[in-house]
Amino acid sequence: MDIRPLIARKQAGATLTGEEIRTLIARLCAGEVAEAQLAAWLMAVWFRGMSEAETVALTLAMAASGEQLDLRQVGGRLVVDKHSTGGVGDKTTLVVAPLVAACGVPVAKMSGRALGHTGGTIDKLEIIPGLRTALEPDQIRAQVARIGLVIAAQGERLVPADKLLYALRDRIGAVDSLPLIASSVMSKKIAAGAGGIVLDVKAGSGAFMRTTRQAGGLARLMVRVGVGAGRRMHALVTDMSRPLGRAIGDRAELAEAIAALRGEGPADLVELSLVLGERMLALAGEADPAAARARLQQALATGQGLEKLAAMVRAQGGDERVIREPGRLSAPPVAAVVSARQAGYLRRIEPRALGQAVRDLKEAGHRQAELLLCAQVGEQVAAGAALAEIRGLPAGAAAAVLARLERAFRIGPQPPPARPLVLAEVAG
Amino acid sequence: MDIRPLIARKQAGATLTGEEIRTLIARLCAGEVAEAQLAAWLMAVWFRGMSEAETVALTLAMAASGEQLDLRQVGGRLVVDKHSTGGVGDKTTLVVAPLVAACGVPVAKMSGRALGHTGGTIDKLEIIPGLRTALEPDQIRAQVARIGLVIAAQGERLVPADKLLYALRDRIGAVDSLPLIASSVMSKKIAAGAGGIVLDVKAGSGAFMRTTRQAGGLARLMVRVGVGAGRRMHALVTDMSRPLGRAIGDRAELAEAIAALRGEGPADLVELSLVLGERMLALAGEADPAAARARLQQALATGQGLEKLAAMVRAQGGDERVIREPGRLSAPPVAAVVSARQAGYLRRIEPRALGQAVRDLKEAGHRQAELLLCAQVGEQVAAGAALAEIRGLPAGAAAAVLARLERAFRIGPQPPPARPLVLAEVAG
Repeated sequence: MDIRPLIARKQAGATLTGEEIRTLIARLCAGEVAEAQLAAWLMAVWFRGMSEAETVALTLAMAASGEQLDLRQVGGRLVVDKHSTGGVGDKTTLVVAPLVAACGVPVAKMSGRALGHTGGTIDKLEIIPGLRTALEPDQIRAQVARIGLVIAAQGERLVPADKLLYALRDRIGAVDSLPLIASSVMSKKIAAGAGGIVLDVKAGSGAFMRTTRQAGGLARLMVRVGVGAGRRMHALVTDMSRPLGRAIGDRAELAEAIAALRGEGPADLVELSLVLGERMLALAGEADPAAARARLQQALATGQGLEKLAAMVRAQGGDERVIREPGRLSAPPVAAVVSARQAGYLRRIEPRALGQAVRDLKEAGHRQAELLLCAQVGEQVAAGAALAEIRGLPAGAAAAVLARLERAFRIGPQPPPARPLVLAEVAG
Repeated sequence: MDIRPLIARKQAGATLTGEEIRTLIARLCAGEVAEAQLAAWLMAVWFRGMSEAETVALTLAMAASGEQLDLRQVGGRLVVDKHSTGGVGDKTTLVVAPLVAACGVPVAKMSGRALGHTGGTIDKLEIIPGLRTALEPDQIRAQVARIGLVIAAQGERLVPADKLLYALRDRIGAVDSLPLIASSVMSKKIAAGAGGIVLDVKAGSGAFMRTTRQAGGLARLMVRVGVGAGRRMHALVTDMSRPLGRAIGDRAELAEAIAALRGEGPADLVELSLVLGERMLALAGEADPAAARARLQQALATGQGLEKLAAMVRAQGGDERVIREPGRLSAPPVAAVVSARQAGYLRRIEPRALGQAVRDLKEAGHRQAELLLCAQVGEQVAAGAALAEIRGLPAGAAAAVLARLERAFRIGPQPPPARPLVLAEVAG
């Protein structure tokens, strides 16, 4: 298929019809679109953008390119999903999904793996021995019906168009385009089938969207696309100018999420989980935010959230003792410590630098490398105090990244300005 | 070579260094640049443009990608070249090159083949039996030294980078970019080696540049690129809102050019040839335009131009009787006639429609199809008068394109506004 007419229309800033977009995606998946022409089309889209209608059409065409689950309702109840655009230390899914499920609202989530400097829920879950995340559609549906909670890896057969488009966008530098990001995320959410979707769009130096404005634009577009596809939608723009919680790295993040469900989580992680949970309950019909929060807090305080996660782990073949017995996830020994060079207030922790360091260590073969923050932004520290521990690798390898990690911490005489956790909100 | 950094810089509207551009072209020619990435880079250039310095660097890098001739001086004299961006009925090269050579200024021209709806000089020359246009560099240089005139086909070994870039630009719809057009044209001119270059940039509905403004921009850019490459440059922007002369089609255009050298040419073709010739003589040192024109007119009146063309044909192995004996190029029989539907003034002849019709007939196998205008824009015609003859194909095939050709002619009660032949001029 010669797509020059579609390229030319995008060059001219015109709008493609839904039929044209559906044909493009269908031919792409049939291997009938030359890569050079697709690259040119993507670059023209990068420059000109897409209308909301085009983005909805692209998203639906992508979602329809492979297997699609229908989980909008299971047992007469709306099934909800939650998606984060990715941040450093973001293990919120592992906290909020069990809490919401414990409140009686079924949660079905397809998760991805680590992308760039951000972690992936599936990588964290796979720390649990025996746990299966590769589930068939009927297994997913049955598990939602039975225990109200499933977190599965996004199957290979879901949204093949996204794999083709994303790989090429990555190769040509056309990743950072709002309509292409929105259609990539939302096509997977729609193919995954939940009826209500809460989006956590991260904003800040540790996120793909650096500014609240960019993140807000993406949030609005994704909400509209989801509504256009018949889903109940809500989006939050949340702070990623600092790591979320204190743990960075798969084992440490899983352990921190379990601790949060046990009532021992860091305040920012717990608060964000409650806020996201409120919005998920709201999509499922709980109109009163205070009542929603009370239900979530009760699920937390009574340990019902932890029980729900344990039930999910058991259902997916994992060793649920990891959830119930904290000692089973003990941290590897400390390899090096990042220390404060001066006394003062911790003004800044650059999340991207920490996320990249952990990723680089893992890619260099230190699969268990992790970072544990000993202080969070805003705290007062003494000169020489430990700011973070590097664990899970030989001391020599840790020493090599120490200088790089030290630069991620800024200490000053004044406390930093307060920054809210939720920066903006978009209702569907 | 991963050229993502170069793509990203162009996306951001930044300027590449000469070294980066040279590396890009060298790696491209070595087959080390992925087509998808090159397509993305070209599309980013299409959107963002290039600076003059970038365009010069690209042009020189392209020129250096293959064989380069050095014809700046032959026998102590500056060698000049002339290039048209392409028009309908434009056979000027075949008139002006012999006239200038007859004035003692050596002309070496590498020509191309037909592109789109416009004709190519090489296609016209090859009507002459035996004529060789595939010449080796030493043959070209020797012929310039000996008779002062050569018109050769652009060799396969010249500017391989342009072949790669142009083919991809064509496939992705990134042809119409001023810096990419300028570098494509000028890299070939520079590799072809002449020391002075006169550009005829066509403007109007029959040209690739539709407006005088666009054509002027291209002319300015090409002049600067040529000057940046150390050439003497001059550009004219000339009218292509109507066909040039009365003949369209290879045989007819060759015959019309020979007629012009015999003193029997249509006024517009002769005038444009004289104007271009003046500028070519000026580059070679003839400072006085009136003197230059007098020399050219003398070469025309005395038949020295015709003799020079005959000498060139002989030198390149062609049958020079075609030049000397008009009967040898007799027209094929008339297949159909386009007639005036009403009396009045011929207000418009749409050149692109005529050029496309002739090209389509040739591509359909009617290799000898040609059009001869019986009236030119501005002339008064009677109802039913012949406006054009279609020749060189069966009457049935000609009848099939008649309606299409008729639509290219507009007749009205008032004479059309006068339009000058030369619309703008750019000195180097």
